[in-house]
Amino acid sequence: MTHYTLQGSTLSKIPWEERPTGKNDVVWRYSHNPIIPGDLLPTSNSIFNSAVVPFQGAFAGVFRCDNRRRDMNIHAGRSQDGITWQINPQPIQFQGQDPEVTRLEYRYDPRVCWIDDRFIVTWCNGYHGPTIGIGYTYDFETFTQVENAFLPYNRNGVMFPRKIHGKYAMLSRPSDRGHTPFGDMFYSESPDLEYWGRHRFVMQPKGGWQSTKVGAGPIPLETSQGWLLFYHGVLTSCNGFEYSFGAALLDLDEPWKVLYRTGPYLLGPHEVYERVGDTPNVVFPCAALVDAPTGRIAIYYGGADTVICLAFAYVDEVIDFIKGNSDV
Amino acid sequence: MTHYTLQGSTLSKIPWEERPTGKNDVVWRYSHNPIIPGDLLPTSNSIFNSAVVPFQGAFAGVFRCDNRRRDMNIHAGRSQDGITWQINPQPIQFQGQDPEVTRLEYRYDPRVCWIDDRFIVTWCNGYHGPTIGIGYTYDFETFTQVENAFLPYNRNGVMFPRKIHGKYAMLSRPSDRGHTPFGDMFYSESPDLEYWGRHRFVMQPKGGWQSTKVGAGPIPLETSQGWLLFYHGVLTSCNGFEYSFGAALLDLDEPWKVLYRTGPYLLGPHEVYERVGDTPNVVFPCAALVDAPTGRIAIYYGGADTVICLAFAYVDEVIDFIKGNSDV
Amino acid sequence: MTHYTLQGSTLSKIPWEERPTGKNDVVWRYSHNPIIPGDLLPTSNSIFNSAVVPFQGAFAGVFRCDNRRRDMNIHAGRSQDGITWQINPQPIQFQGQDPEVTRLEYRYDPRVCWIDDRFIVTWCNGYHGPTIGIGYTYDFETFTQVENAFLPYNRNGVMFPRKIHGKYAMLSRPSDRGHTPFGDMFYSESPDLEYWGRHRFVMQPKGGWQSTKVGAGPIPLETSQGWLLFYHGVLTSCNGFEYSFGAALLDLDEPWKVLYRTGPYLLGPHEVYERVGDTPNVVFPCAALVDAPTGRIAIYYGGADTVICLAFAYVDEVIDFIKGNSDV
Amino acid sequence: MTHYTLQGSTLSKIPWEERPTGKNDVVWRYSHNPIIPGDLLPTSNSIFNSAVVPFQGAFAGVFRCDNRRRDMNIHAGRSQDGITWQINPQPIQFQGQDPEVTRLEYRYDPRVCWIDDRFIVTWCNGYHGPTIGIGYTYDFETFTQVENAFLPYNRNGVMFPRKIHGKYAMLSRPSDRGHTPFGDMFYSESPDLEYWGRHRFVMQPKGGWQSTKVGAGPIPLETSQGWLLFYHGVLTSCNGFEYSFGAALLDLDEPWKVLYRTGPYLLGPHEVYERVGDTPNVVFPCAALVDAPTGRIAIYYGGADTVICLAFAYVDEVIDFIKGNSDV
Amino acid sequence: MTHYTLQGSTLSKIPWEERPTGKNDVVWRYSHNPIIPGDLLPTSNSIFNSAVVPFQGAFAGVFRCDNRRRDMNIHAGRSQDGITWQINPQPIQFQGQDPEVTRLEYRYDPRVCWIDDRFIVTWCNGYHGPTIGIGYTYDFETFTQVENAFLPYNRNGVMFPRKIHGKYAMLSRPSDRGHTPFGDMFYSESPDLEYWGRHRFVMQPKGGWQSTKVGAGPIPLETSQGWLLFYHGVLTSCNGFEYSFGAALLDLDEPWKVLYRTGPYLLGPHEVYERVGDTPNVVFPCAALVDAPTGRIAIYYGGADTVICLAFAYVDEVIDFIKGNSDV
Amino acid sequence: MTHYTLQGSTLSKIPWEERPTGKNDVVWRYSHNPIIPGDLLPTSNSIFNSAVVPFQGAFAGVFRCDNRRRDMNIHAGRSQDGITWQINPQPIQFQGQDPEVTRLEYRYDPRVCWIDDRFIVTWCNGYHGPTIGIGYTYDFETFTQVENAFLPYNRNGVMFPRKIHGKYAMLSRPSDRGHTPFGDMFYSESPDLEYWGRHRFVMQPKGGWQSTKVGAGPIPLETSQGWLLFYHGVLTSCNGFEYSFGAALLDLDEPWKVLYRTGPYLLGPHEVYERVGDTPNVVFPCAALVDAPTGRIAIYYGGADTVICLAFAYVDEVIDFIKGNSDV
Repeated sequence: MTHYTLQGSTLSKIPWEERPTGKNDVVWRYSHNPIIPGDLLPTSNSIFNSAVVPFQGAFAGVFRCDNRRRDMNIHAGRSQDGITWQINPQPIQFQGQDPEVTRLEYRYDPRVCWIDDRFIVTWCNGYHGPTIGIGYTYDFETFTQVENAFLPYNRNGVMFPRKIHGKYAMLSRPSDRGHTPFGDMFYSESPDLEYWGRHRFVMQPKGGWQSTKVGAGPIPLETSQGWLLFYHGVLTSCNGFEYSFGAALLDLDEPWKVLYRTGPYLLGPHEVYERVGDTPNVVFPCAALVDAPTGRIAIYYGGADTVICLAFAYVDEVIDFIKGNSDV
Repeated sequence: MTHYTLQGSTLSKIPWEERPTGKNDVVWRYSHNPIIPGDLLPTSNSIFNSAVVPFQGAFAGVFRCDNRRRDMNIHAGRSQDGITWQINPQPIQFQGQDPEVTRLEYRYDPRVCWIDDRFIVTWCNGYHGPTIGIGYTYDFETFTQVENAFLPYNRNGVMFPRKIHGKYAMLSRPSDRGHTPFGDMFYSESPDLEYWGRHRFVMQPKGGWQSTKVGAGPIPLETSQGWLLFYHGVLTSCNGFEYSFGAALLDLDEPWKVLYRTGPYLLGPHEVYERVGDTPNVVFPCAALVDAPTGRIAIYYGGADTVICLAFAYVDEVIDFIKGNSDV
Repeated sequence: MTHYTLQGSTLSKIPWEERPTGKNDVVWRYSHNPIIPGDLLPTSNSIFNSAVVPFQGAFAGVFRCDNRRRDMNIHAGRSQDGITWQINPQPIQFQGQDPEVTRLEYRYDPRVCWIDDRFIVTWCNGYHGPTIGIGYTYDFETFTQVENAFLPYNRNGVMFPRKIHGKYAMLSRPSDRGHTPFGDMFYSESPDLEYWGRHRFVMQPKGGWQSTKVGAGPIPLETSQGWLLFYHGVLTSCNGFEYSFGAALLDLDEPWKVLYRTGPYLLGPHEVYERVGDTPNVVFPCAALVDAPTGRIAIYYGGADTVICLAFAYVDEVIDFIKGNSDV
Repeated sequence: MTHYTLQGSTLSKIPWEERPTGKNDVVWRYSHNPIIPGDLLPTSNSIFNSAVVPFQGAFAGVFRCDNRRRDMNIHAGRSQDGITWQINPQPIQFQGQDPEVTRLEYRYDPRVCWIDDRFIVTWCNGYHGPTIGIGYTYDFETFTQVENAFLPYNRNGVMFPRKIHGKYAMLSRPSDRGHTPFGDMFYSESPDLEYWGRHRFVMQPKGGWQSTKVGAGPIPLETSQGWLLFYHGVLTSCNGFEYSFGAALLDLDEPWKVLYRTGPYLLGPHEVYERVGDTPNVVFPCAALVDAPTGRIAIYYGGADTVICLAFAYVDEVIDFIKGNSDV
Repeated sequence: MTHYTLQGSTLSKIPWEERPTGKNDVVWRYSHNPIIPGDLLPTSNSIFNSAVVPFQGAFAGVFRCDNRRRDMNIHAGRSQDGITWQINPQPIQFQGQDPEVTRLEYRYDPRVCWIDDRFIVTWCNGYHGPTIGIGYTYDFETFTQVENAFLPYNRNGVMFPRKIHGKYAMLSRPSDRGHTPFGDMFYSESPDLEYWGRHRFVMQPKGGWQSTKVGAGPIPLETSQGWLLFYHGVLTSCNGFEYSFGAALLDLDEPWKVLYRTGPYLLGPHEVYERVGDTPNVVFPCAALVDAPTGRIAIYYGGADTVICLAFAYVDEVIDFIKGNSDV
Repeated sequence: MTHYTLQGSTLSKIPWEERPTGKNDVVWRYSHNPIIPGDLLPTSNSIFNSAVVPFQGAFAGVFRCDNRRRDMNIHAGRSQDGITWQINPQPIQFQGQDPEVTRLEYRYDPRVCWIDDRFIVTWCNGYHGPTIGIGYTYDFETFTQVENAFLPYNRNGVMFPRKIHGKYAMLSRPSDRGHTPFGDMFYSESPDLEYWGRHRFVMQPKGGWQSTKVGAGPIPLETSQGWLLFYHGVLTSCNGFEYSFGAALLDLDEPWKVLYRTGPYLLGPHEVYERVGDTPNVVFPCAALVDAPTGRIAIYYGGADTVICLAFAYVDEVIDFIKGNSDV
C-alpha cells in the first residue's frame, strides 16, 4: 500500500475502532451503532443525515432532526467525544437581512465546512421547492443565513473546504419537486457565496448500486491523489430506493473531472438499523472526520432516515480501493 | 392539568400499565406488544386493525383476519382481560334480506359501536369496490347486515356512539379503487341507517405525518371538550406510505367542525412490530376503551398490517396535548 | 321492425333531419353541427355537455359553459327551435338554506329531469372533490340547490323521470379525484332527494369502445321494452381517452338490471368537431328529446369538450339495434 | 380607457390589423396565420416558439427549427415586413471560449433581448438536462455563447430589457428532466451575465388555464404601470397539456412582485393551426413588438409546436384588462 | 445517383404519381389520400395499418378493420388498381388443427409475404397478450393459421421474403402488455415456421423521431445494397406518441447487422388525415409494392390509426438518402 | 392420507427436520435459517434465489451472487450436506461458439435440471433485456452456454426433468423491461434446445397472495398425481410487492393443463430474514430436493432477495393440501 498525503485537522480524539478481525472491508462499522437514536430529543421522530466537525478541541455539529409533526429542521449540537451528543432542542434560528431568505419552510441534510475563518453550513432548504441554503457560524451559537445558492430544485449542496482558483466551489445535485427518480452531480463556483455560475457536470449514475441517482456526501477531503469524495448512490429495486455509498477521486484543480470512482460500494445497508426505519435500506454519509498523521477517517452517516451511525476507514486503503476498483 | 369529563362505560378490568419512567409521551405502548400475533388462527396470515368493546363484564371484538389466501374477512372474538383473545376461526356469517347486500367480496378494518340497544359493526366492504358495510349484533354470535352506507369508493366508516340531532352519524373517508394516494374525512347522517345524506367535509391532510391522507380511528369519545377522535394520518416517503396517529376534538353539536387537532402525531411506527410486517411502518388504531372515573384510555391498534398492539393514555393529558399542540 | 311504446312529452317542434341516403347508421348527425360554438358567450371558452328540455311550448336548457379562466359553471338558456339558443351570460345563482351547500367550487355536465311538478337539475358539483349536486327550478329563472346526493367522488348523476317504487332514483358513476381511469355505473334511491341509499351496481366497462369507464348520459327514456339509456363509454388509446356512446335497456321495475346493451357504439368521434378541441375525440350525450307519436329522438351531445352537437334516431330502430347487438 | 406610457422602440413598419368587427377580444389573431409554416426550410419538421426584434429598420429573429431528425436547434432569420421571413438553413454556430459550454446537445425556445449595446439571446439549452443558455450578437450573423445561467433543469429564461438596480435580471422556470407536470416562475439577477443569484419567487400556477405550470413569454415591456409580461399557462386535461397565454404586471423596481395578473387567458388554442400539430392545443408566445406612439403590440407565438403565428393588441387595453380581471 | 438493383415482382400496374414540383422529399404522398376511409365497411370504425401484394395480375391484401365495438380483426381484400379496394365485410376465418391456436382474441397490423409457394400472413395476435400470429393462403380466400411464432408480448412481426441460410427469418419487436413505452427490433429464425430461435438484436431507438420505440414496417426489399427496410419510429411528446417512418439497409447475409439507417425520418405525420383520428399523429407503413425495372416503390401506410394512405419513392433515391444521412 | 408415488433421486443425505410440534403447516422452516448469508463471499452483497441438486453423492449448485457493484451473476458451489456451502468466488465463465450469445450483461435466478446425461442450467439472462439463458454442465466445473430460449422479455425459465412427447419442455414467465407489475406462466417446447415453439398458456394470477404475477419455482417433481410445481406469487400492497409461494399439479402429458392449484400459500414471508433485506417480504423457491422412499422434500428459497433459506415438507401432505385447497 502506498502512503498518500491527507490535508486535514489533526484530531487526536477521534473515536476509533480497528477493523474487525477476519474482515476485509475497506469501511467498517462502529460496534455500538447507532450512536444517536431517533428520539434523542423529547420531540424528535428521527435524527439522521447530519454533519459534525472538530471544534475547540472537541466536536460540534449540525443535525437533521425531524420532529413528531415530521417537520424537517436542523439543530446545533456539541460533543466531547464525537459519540455522545448534546443536541439543542430548539432548531437553529438564522439571522439575516431579508426575511424572504430566512423564512423557514424546511431545512434538512446539512453539511458543515470550515473555510477561511468560519463554518459554512449548507443544507437542503425549502424555498418554493428544495434548493441549497447557505449560512455560517463562528461559534455554533449564532448562525447567519445568506442567499440561497441556486434556483430550486436542488439537493445535497456540499462545499469544498478551500477556494479553488479564488472562487468558492460547491457540488450539488439538481433534482425535482418529488422523490426524484434521477440525479447527477454538478460543480458550481462563486466569487462571493452570493452569485453562482460556471456550472460543470461532474458525474451521473452508472448502474448497480448507483443506478438511479448520485449525490455528494461529506465535505471532500484533500489528498495528494485528488479530492476524496464519499458519495451516495441509489438503486431502485422493485420495492423502492436503496442507498449505499462509495467514493471518487476528483482532480484537485478542476474538480469536475473524475479521476477514479468506485465500481463497488464501500458500505451498503445491511444492519437492521440501516434496513428498518422511516426509509428502509439507507446509509447516507454527511460528514467525515480525518486524522492526517494516521490517515484515520471517521464517517458519520444516517441509517434508514432514522438514526446516526459511525463507520471507520484508513485513507490509504480507501484511495487504493478506489483506484483498484474504478469504473470511470 | 384540567380535569375533563369523559362519557363512557366504566371498565374496571381495563388492562393498564403506567407510562414508563423517564418518558413524557402522552401515549405509550403496552410492554408485551403485540398482544395478538398474525398467526393466532391456524389459517391466518395476519390479524390487525380490529375493534374491541366491553361486553357482559368482559370483552368482545370484531377482528380483521387475513387468511393465507390473503382474503380479507372479519371474525368475532371474546376475551376475559382484553389481552388474551379467543377468535372464532370462522368468519362472521351475516344474515340479511337481500343476497346482493350480504354477498361476500371482502371485509376489513371493522369498528364496533354501541348505540341504543345493540352493537353496530361497520367495516370496509367490497361491493364492486370498497364501501362502508353496516351490520349489527346483540350478542357477538348472530350478526345481521343491512344496506351499505355509501356508494363505493370509501373506507374507514366510523359511527358516533349516539344520535346527533336525532340522526345516526358517521365519519368516513371517500377514496378510490387502489391504494388511494389521497383522502379527506367527511361526516354523514342518516334517519334510519339505510339512507344517508347531508354530507359535510371534516378535515383534510395538512403536512408532515398527515400529509397524504387522514382517516377516523376508534369510535369518537364524548368529552366535555368535544368528541375526542383518534385518527390516522399517512406520509408518503420515497419508499411508500407511513401510518401514524394523532387526535382531534370535534364540536359536540356539529361534529364536522374541528375545534383542535394535533400538529405532532401521538404515536408513530417505531417498534419493530410496527415497522416490519406485510405493510412496513404502520400504526392504525381502531378501538379505544375508556374508564371514565380514572380517565384511562386503552387504544387497540394494528402494527405493520400484521399484528394487534395496545397503547395507553389519560384522557386529560390527551386533551391538553391536542389543545396545546393544535394546528387546525 | 317492431313498434315499441315510448313515454315522453309530445314535441312537434323537434328539430329533425332524416337519415342521409346511403347510410345505415342507427344514429346520424345533424348536418349543421355544431349547433352551439364554444364562444357563443363573449367570455366562454367552450360550451358542451349540456341538457335541454321542452318548456312552455319551446325549449329550455342548462348549459356547461367553461369561461376563459377555464372555470366550469352552468348557465340557463332558452330556445324557440332547439337549435338557436340564448344562453344567459351569467351562471346560475342557486338559492338554498346552507351556504356550505350552495358555495360554488365548480359545476359541470348538467342533466335536467322533469319529475312531479318541477325540473330537477343534477350536475357534477365541486365539494372537496366532485360529487353530484342537485337543484330544481320551475321556470329556468330561479334555481334552488339542495343537499349533494353523495359523498365525493362522483360524476354523471342522472335522475329517472319518475319515482320507482315510491322513491326517487338516480344513476351515477363513482370515481376519484383525477381523470379517473375507471368507472362503473350504480343505481341509488331516495325517499326525499336528501338521503340516499340502497345502492346497486348496474354495469361496468367491458372492452372496446367501453373498456375504460361508462357513464349515464341523458335522462332514461321509458319504453315498453325497458328504460332506454344512452350512455358514454371510454377507450384508452396510446394517446389518451376516446369517448363514444351506445345504449342499454334497463328493467323497468329494477333498473339496476341490464336487459340489453349495445356491443358496438352508436356514435363515435369521427367528425372534425368531435376529434379536434380541448379534449380530442369526444362525443358525450347529455339530453335526448323525444316525440312519442313518431318515435323520433334528438340527442344533444358535446363534441371534443368544446361545442354542442345534435344527432337523430328513431326509438324503434335504436331498441332493435340494442337487442340485436347486445353483449350483456 | 386610460393611456399608459410604454417604453419601446418605435416601429412604424409593424404589421398590423385591427380587431375584427363584432369581437371584443383584447388580443386578436392575424388573418393570414400561420405566417411561417413548419416546413419553410427543406429539412425542417416544424418552426415555432421563436423570437423576433426590430433590426436595422427591418426585422431579425432567432427561430426554433426542429429538423426531420427531430433535433431541436435555433436559426437566425431576417425579414423586411415581419411576416415573410428568410431563415438561415444552417443553425446558429456559437463562438465561445470553452467547448464544454458551446457544445451542442439541443437548443430551443429562444428569446432575444436588446440590452446596452447588443442582442442577448437566451434559450433552453441542453447541458446534461435542459438549462438556460445565453449568447449575444451584434449583427445576427456572428453569435457568441457565454456560460449557462443556471444549473439544470430550467426552461423559459427571459431577460429584462434593462439592468435593474445595476444588475442583469432574468425570469426562468425551474423544471425537471421530462415533460414537467409543474412549474413556477422565478427571478434571478447577475452582475456580469456569468454568476447568478438572489433568486426570488415570482408566481405559481393558480387554477384553470394556468393550473399546471406558468412560464414567461416575450421580453417584458416596460410601461408606466409596471413590467407588462405575457406568459403562458398550462392546463392538464384528461388528454394532456393545453397551453394558453395571459399577462401580468410586475413591479418596476422589484419585478418579483406581481401587481396584477389575468384571471382569464388572453388567447387560448382555438384555431386548427393551434389545435392540430406535433403538440395539439398550444399557443406559446415568445416575442412582442411594440409601437410606443400608438400602443400597438404584435405578439409572435408558436401554434401546436409546429408553426409561427401572429396576434395583435393595444397596450392600454391589455393593461386595463389585466387590472380589471386580476386574480393575484 | 447510382443505380441499385432491386429484387421484386415487376408490377406494371403500380399506382404512381411523380414527386410534386418544387419539392425535394424522397418520399411523397399520393394526391388523393386517404385511399381507404375508416368507414369503408358499414360496420368499420377504422381501416389502417394493412398489407397489400400483387396477386394474379391485380392486387390482394389483408386489412386491419376495427369495428364499432372497437374489436380489432383482419379482413381479406381485392383491388384492380391498388387504389380502389373491395374488402370482405367478414373477418378472415382461419383454419387450423388446434383451437387453442386459432381461437380469436384479436388480430391487428397484418403483413403479407410471398415465400416459396404461398403468401405468409403475420400479425399481432392476441393470445393471453399480444404475440406474432402466423398463417398462410394461396388464394386470399382460404387461410390457415399455424402456431404463434413467439411467447407474448410481441408486435410487428415481419417476415423476410426468402429463406436465409435455409431458415425462415422474421423481424419482431418484443414489447409488453400495454402501450409499450419502449421497443427494440430483433431477428429470429426458424427451420419450419413452428419453432423459432437464434434470436439476434437488430436495432434500438436512438433519439428524435425514433426515440421511444422502433418497429419493422413492410416486408424488406432485397437490393444490391442490402435489405431495404422501412420502419416506424416513435417520439413521445408531452401529449403522447408520434409515429414517423424512416428506412435502414440490413446486411443481406446477416440481416441483424444494420449497415445504414436514416437519421431524419422519410415521412412524418403532417397532413390532417395523419394528425387527426383515433390516434393523432401517426404514419405507419405496412406494405411496399415495387417495380424493379423503374425502381418505383409504392408505400401503403396507416394514417392516424384511422385510414389507409399511399406514398411514393424511387429505390435509388431512398438508398442514397439512407447512406447519405445515416446515423448507425 | 393417501400415498402418492414420487419420481426422483433417492437422497439419503437430505437435511431434514420434522415439523415443529404444535404446528400444522404443510411446509415448515429449517430452524437454522438462513443457511447462506448474503456476504458468504468477500465481495458479495447478497446470495439468494439459487438452485441445488444432488451430485456425486453430495450436492452441487448454481448460486445467484450479487456483488457490491450490485452486478447480478451466477456462481457454482459444492456442499457435502446441502447446508454448508463452498461457493466459487468467481462467476461461471460460460464456453460457447458465438460471443454474441455468451457475452455477459447479467445473469440471475438460476435453476438446474438433470436431463438425459447432463445438468441443464437456465437463468434470467441479460440480452438487450431479460430473457431465458440456457447452458449445461457435466461436472459443475465447465459450463457451456447455448442459444437463449426466447426473445426478451422473460424471466423464471424452468425446465421439465424429462422430455415430453419427445420434446424438451420449459415453463417461463413473459414480462417486460422493468419490475413487471404482471406475469403469467407459459409452456414451450423444443426439439433441440435451440428452437422453441408451440407456446401454451398455463396459469395467471388470481387474487390474494398471487394477484400480481406468478412464476415457476423449482424443477417440477414428477408424481403419480401430476407434475408437482412449487411456484411463487406476488401481491402488491400499498408498500410494494410481497412474494409468497404455493404449488400446483400439472397434467403429466399436457403440462399446460393445471389440475389443481393452492388457494392459500404454502409459505409467506414472516420471519425477519424474509421480511428485512434488499427486497422486503420475499420468499422465492428455486430448488427442491426429494427423497422418493420417504416423500421428503427440502425446498431451497431466497429470503428478502438477500439470503438462502431452507424449508421442509412431505410430498403426500403437499399433494393432499393442493387437492384439498384448490382454486383452479
